[in-house]
Amino acid sequence: MKSPDSVELPDASQLHQAATRLRGQIRRTPVLELDPSEVGVGARVIVKAELLQHTGSFKVRGALNTLLMHPAPPEGVVAASGGNHGAAVAWAAARVGVPARVFVPASSPRVKAERIASYGAQVIVVEGYYPEAFEASERWAAGRDVARVHAYDAPDVVAGQGTLGLETIEQVPDATTLLVSCGGGGLYAGTSLALTGRCTVVPVEPERCPSLFAAVEAGAPVPAPVGGVAADSMGASTTGRIAHSVATRAGIRPLLVSDEAILTARSFLWERCRILAEPGGATAFAALLSGVYRPADDETVVVVVSGGNTTELPESPSARA
Amino acid sequence: MKSPDSVELPDASQLHQAATRLRGQIRRTPVLELDPSEVGVGARVIVKAELLQHTGSFKVRGALNTLLMHPAPPEGVVAASGGNHGAAVAWAAARVGVPARVFVPASSPRVKAERIASYGAQVIVVEGYYPEAFEASERWAAGRDVARVHAYDAPDVVAGQGTLGLETIEQVPDATTLLVSCGGGGLYAGTSLALTGRCTVVPVEPERCPSLFAAVEAGAPVPAPVGGVAADSMGASTTGRIAHSVATRAGIRPLLVSDEAILTARSFLWERCRILAEPGGATAFAALLSGVYRPADDETVVVVVSGGNTTELPESPSARA
Ligand SMILES: Cc1ncc(COP(=O)(O)O)c(C=O)c1O
Ligand SMILES: Cc1ncc(COP(=O)(O)O)c(C=O)c1O
Repeated sequence: MKSPDSVELPDASQLHQAATRLRGQIRRTPVLELDPSEVGVGARVIVKAELLQHTGSFKVRGALNTLLMHPAPPEGVVAASGGNHGAAVAWAAARVGVPARVFVPASSPRVKAERIASYGAQVIVVEGYYPEAFEASERWAAGRDVARVHAYDAPDVVAGQGTLGLETIEQVPDATTLLVSCGGGGLYAGTSLALTGRCTVVPVEPERCPSLFAAVEAGAPVPAPVGGVAADSMGASTTGRIAHSVATRAGIRPLLVSDEAILTARSFLWERCRILAEPGGATAFAALLSGVYRPADDETVVVVVSGGNTTELPESPSARA
Repeated sequence: MKSPDSVELPDASQLHQAATRLRGQIRRTPVLELDPSEVGVGARVIVKAELLQHTGSFKVRGALNTLLMHPAPPEGVVAASGGNHGAAVAWAAARVGVPARVFVPASSPRVKAERIASYGAQVIVVEGYYPEAFEASERWAAGRDVARVHAYDAPDVVAGQGTLGLETIEQVPDATTLLVSCGGGGLYAGTSLALTGRCTVVPVEPERCPSLFAAVEAGAPVPAPVGGVAADSMGASTTGRIAHSVATRAGIRPLLVSDEAILTARSFLWERCRILAEPGGATAFAALLSGVYRPADDETVVVVVSGGNTTELPESPSARA
């Protein structure tokens, strides 16, 4: 399906095919209903605990969908990432039985590299930051027959992430609103396309990583600042063309949450629910808890907790909220 | 209902009434199906994530059931505990709107006391260990009109814990086996009574806290050693008379797991599922992962993760299993 601005978007049948393809391969992550009064709202509030997914984030959905659709050559798959995308590609490659090489910047915490290696990938630590790791991966891949998986801006990836939306609506058929965190926009675009006409999908960005917000303001994806507590997972400097196109068609402007709101949400999820999210994983919940998103009392709001790749507990032992 | 040894056990209708009473008051905690191959078994494996319950453990079920059945006098409720029982009593008291006083031994980690206070209880820190806290609570309660909630050996508490069994079988109707961790035995007794004739409930104890095992060997509850990594939650030195009676009638001998197996299970749950259990909460899973419990391929095994009141992440970043 081509959007008016000629970006290729996955259509409904691609989304449903992705769901069928992934069935039994990934986890059906559970939902947990909270007491609205705990959250200070009148609406029903349900957490979709996607951090319990393989590798600790939804990213395996898009990665495995891609590798199942386009079998990788024998040299396998290559990725540059010190985070959730790298782990997802490593896991998905192991699942389909091809080798994976993941170039990890030395700036990433060592345990993240160890986790990627624990899924069977060959990890190459590159001195420097993400751009250096990316360049090294490109040099290695040049002239080799290897596959890649985009982290957010490819139709098969977006379709894979969209299966989270289809799964959620099966679990909560009366959901009216889905709040999702948004980095490069793959999760937002996929779930929004999956739930068109059934449920409003609202993207939430950290104020300090406002790439989709900037694109909507500018009318096209543009470089935006990257910083703050969720930068490791939400720090795509330019949003995806797919996400921008989806948001434009839906007339949606992303919500922005402060670092303080993200940390408070992370603390609440741990102290009150024993859900240990990474900051990016708590970003959608931050919109609800801080009141940046104010549901009407008759809404049923599902909040995706998208990832749990953290190596520390929140600071404050008592709930900050 | 009286058992042959004249211990009072909750009967089926008390269990169902408890479930009705608690509906909408506590969380319906979610289940997560794992890939059997991850766990190294042929059976279906499903985790019941009860650590996502209010206060981080199942203990609120028994505590709230008790306080709803027997409204506390205006002076409220008193408990001695630095752990999950104290938090559960504090939470349940707040829920029904009576004051709670919890005597916490100074040996308990400060954050646990802070958590108990965060549910609105008055926390009194007592120099020493549990016995000193217990004595102080008795002194305070003497001559006052206050309510108490036993931590495991009272019919209303057991009935409350049993609602976890009823909830699980609604979520997984074809469950054949439920593995539960066992300290004083309230959780085991309640779920076993709830699922009689539907599903086998297997209690799992740490080797170093074998109170039910010792009782079954001796033919009566007897003092048993208390030690090891799960002692803070599983360290009832003498098992409940109810649990002993239930195990005897069922002809069940508890499984015993090593500290090493508990820590490996805790690590696996975090590294592979982003479920951060406390050692006592990971004890039932340890029986499955270590092979102490070996399911047949046609079983559907539900493993209760009973608590998540921990203040640290597992040591090893890569899965120990
Ligand atoms: C935990 C987590 N949440 C949200 C996102 C944002 O996803 P997307 O880039 O598809 O917007 C990411 C991206 O890595 C992530 O790791
Ligand atoms: C997390 C956790 N699991 C299991 C148990 C054991 O429960 P019971 O004493 O009912 O056997 C406890 C007891 O406090 C606990 O806190």
